[in-house]
Amino acid sequence: MRFAVVDVPGRGTRVARVSSGDALEVLPYESLAQLLETPDLGAAEAGETVADARLRAPLSLGRVFVCAGLNYADHAREVGKTAPEFPTFFAKLPNSVISPDAEIRLPAEAVSTQVDWEAEVVIVIGRRVSRADADVAGEAIFGYTIVNDVSVRDWQRRTQEWLQGKNFDDTTPVGPWVVTADEFDPAEPHAVETIVNGVVKQSGSTDDMIFSPADLVSYVSQFMTLQPGDLIATGTPAGVGTTRQPPEFLQDGDELVTRIDGIGELRNVCRRAS
Amino acid sequence: MRFAVVDVPGRGTRVARVSSGDALEVLPYESLAQLLETPDLGAAEAGETVADARLRAPLSLGRVFVCAGLNYADHAREVGKTAPEFPTFFAKLPNSVISPDAEIRLPAEAVSTQVDWEAEVVIVIGRRVSRADADVAGEAIFGYTIVNDVSVRDWQRRTQEWLQGKNFDDTTPVGPWVVTADEFDPAEPHAVETIVNGVVKQSGSTDDMIFSPADLVSYVSQFMTLQPGDLIATGTPAGVGTTRQPPEFLQDGDELVTRIDGIGELRNVCRRAS
Repeated sequence: MRFAVVDVPGRGTRVARVSSGDALEVLPYESLAQLLETPDLGAAEAGETVADARLRAPLSLGRVFVCAGLNYADHAREVGKTAPEFPTFFAKLPNSVISPDAEIRLPAEAVSTQVDWEAEVVIVIGRRVSRADADVAGEAIFGYTIVNDVSVRDWQRRTQEWLQGKNFDDTTPVGPWVVTADEFDPAEPHAVETIVNGVVKQSGSTDDMIFSPADLVSYVSQFMTLQPGDLIATGTPAGVGTTRQPPEFLQDGDELVTRIDGIGELRNVCRRAS
Repeated sequence: MRFAVVDVPGRGTRVARVSSGDALEVLPYESLAQLLETPDLGAAEAGETVADARLRAPLSLGRVFVCAGLNYADHAREVGKTAPEFPTFFAKLPNSVISPDAEIRLPAEAVSTQVDWEAEVVIVIGRRVSRADADVAGEAIFGYTIVNDVSVRDWQRRTQEWLQGKNFDDTTPVGPWVVTADEFDPAEPHAVETIVNGVVKQSGSTDDMIFSPADLVSYVSQFMTLQPGDLIATGTPAGVGTTRQPPEFLQDGDELVTRIDGIGELRNVCRRAS
């Protein structure tokens, strides 16, 4: 199944099932977290089908959104790191998240011109999970969505902590929906791609992850209790702009497409702030 | 003025004014963010005084809580760093925050025995602020509260990013209330202390900060729009356990007092998880 969060004109934010042909069946839940509290995930609900609702980022603000760094072998190599003993995590804060079709706001040129892409699979937690082994952690995964962890490289490198380069206002598209775990297995090879103005820049495969989604959930759950609707991004494959020769960064007007085989795609135009 | 967030029996969470003698005057707002939206900060409200309400951490969950690292000259020296060009930030996530008098949960011994203290002043943002200079940023500060940024040192050092050592469940007391900015000026010397079982471990002064609160708010506002109720911790002075010879860490049953002259104190007992 695929679940989206949509703006329904006159009614506000609702969860919707995405049926065949991309029709949206609106369910009586205002957030994914609310849907995830219902035992049958709203299967019994006869939702009204709407055609013109706008997709939003499918997450519950106010919950946790952490991202694993350096989790694809080919990306670790391109940035000169060896395979890590432990996964690395940083946080995404609410101000950075935008809808799957929204414009990405590039900072003014005087602030930074080094805005880069990172296509990633995102784990959506389906049930409370604490200090779990990989088997239990795997069962706590509700499904998967997509992020482009757009990163402002010079600010990311100003200090030891990456947070400030990863949380510029209106830079991080998430969506377009959540595909349930029974329909998407990252252990099988699924292409993870970033495409800028029609040119493929990243083309990795989910089976190149160093720590599997179940491993990542298990690891985080050792220190932090995860709740329904929490998100964990799983790292990006090789092909980021900063390691290219010469380096490449996003420019005003660029179209950034983030595509994961078996989930869907994000499509965002970059606009530089004045 | 001092504002606290309290549990009122039978009514749930409310904002309260702390009057002389520590009496609590309950106001009709469920969160600090809600209070901060009212033009006169509820000055006109005649609140009912209650005596037995329990103080909670005075923050609005779902908003941003970032912490500056290495912001006291004496602490930067003790960990072998030079004064930084830019402030360092990491995120606190909701699972870690506890009330001002709650027990701090030490992880099981098999997980970590390296739990350390970090007393800090916390900035509470009072109005939306984006790309502000230090003057405008300073005016966006509503007041100040206290955090002990309790840190699990071996997990903090496992990877480049500190997040995992800073976000163990139920480790981070915040409170006991917010003192408005007209009553507390960090540019004047205010003692910042951690006291473990009656022994003073940290005793710094707010006028030893490298980046002032207004500088920190201005810096964060260059990349991230801050909203009313957002928190920025301002770093810790010298005297943390990990740099002592031999290193000292919190043990089951320890009483941790975090005191800031002009704000108040947190008092928390440590309990090791089984």
